[in-house]
Amino acid sequence: MIKRLIPGKRLSMATIHGGLVYLAGQVPDDLTVGVEAQAKQVLDKIDALLAEAGTDKASILTATVWLPNIADFAAFNTAWDAWVPAGASPARACVEARLANPSIRVEIAAIAAIP
Amino acid sequence: MIKRLIPGKRLSMATIHGGLVYLAGQVPDDLTVGVEAQAKQVLDKIDALLAEAGTDKASILTATVWLPNIADFAAFNTAWDAWVPAGASPARACVEARLANPSIRVEIAAIAAIP
Amino acid sequence: MIKRLIPGKRLSMATIHGGLVYLAGQVPDDLTVGVEAQAKQVLDKIDALLAEAGTDKASILTATVWLPNIADFAAFNTAWDAWVPAGASPARACVEARLANPSIRVEIAAIAAIP
Repeated sequence: MIKRLIPGKRLSMATIHGGLVYLAGQVPDDLTVGVEAQAKQVLDKIDALLAEAGTDKASILTATVWLPNIADFAAFNTAWDAWVPAGASPARACVEARLANPSIRVEIAAIAAIP
Repeated sequence: MIKRLIPGKRLSMATIHGGLVYLAGQVPDDLTVGVEAQAKQVLDKIDALLAEAGTDKASILTATVWLPNIADFAAFNTAWDAWVPAGASPARACVEARLANPSIRVEIAAIAAIP
Repeated sequence: MIKRLIPGKRLSMATIHGGLVYLAGQVPDDLTVGVEAQAKQVLDKIDALLAEAGTDKASILTATVWLPNIADFAAFNTAWDAWVPAGASPARACVEARLANPSIRVEIAAIAAIP
């Protein structure tokens, strides 16, 4: 059985199955701010979805990060590094990709375990 | 034990393990048509692979969509939205990426549960 | 419980959970060589991480390959095809994406089963 969080017509924000939660690509709501502030919004959304799924960021297994401008790599990592729990960092890949809206400067998808 | 669908020298079109099926990036065969028609071909291929694995699109946990031209986002979604089952949408990320053949306008990978 | 390989502040090179190992995007160390030689370095790193996780390349379920120059597709595949075990190829997607360092010509992430 699959449970879905914030299910929509196009996609669900998360699917839960077999003790894992699969997060859809999360994007910020306020696109008027810089990449670091956008990253904080995305990480907040991830925290909220993981909480709703009964888990948290220390249980993320792998994350994929897309930056439309790879020159934002260092600024993005400032937000990311402050957010990752000590001793519980996930696997990660971070690559450049243009996104649906040119004002979005970061999108993150992830898979996490549910304890 | 891992079961493979359409195993090739370079890749298998799908691998099955632990009640999940992992689909390789699916691309259309007829590259002479537009992105919406290409998307339909890709979604048909996904349906066929999922059927062979003993599951279907209502059990997709997460999908990754690559469009070489993000301006195709709306046209792609026309095909996608018509295909997603009501109440059973997967997690999804859709980003821009050039693909192996410049005539391919959409590629989709996915992970699905097998009931 | 999640086990991590080469855990760092930013990311772990691999996470292990539920009989699967999730590899972070692996990149080469020697960036002075061409894409085929860079690919061999990446595949060697994958072999080493999988060995540390108690598995090997024949148990890879899915891999994602990013090439900053999709024109490297054929050269990359020369290394890849020589490495994939006969009869045990994974699902795979290979797309273009610029990476954190412009001298990196290939990055690969993967999920593998642990027998």
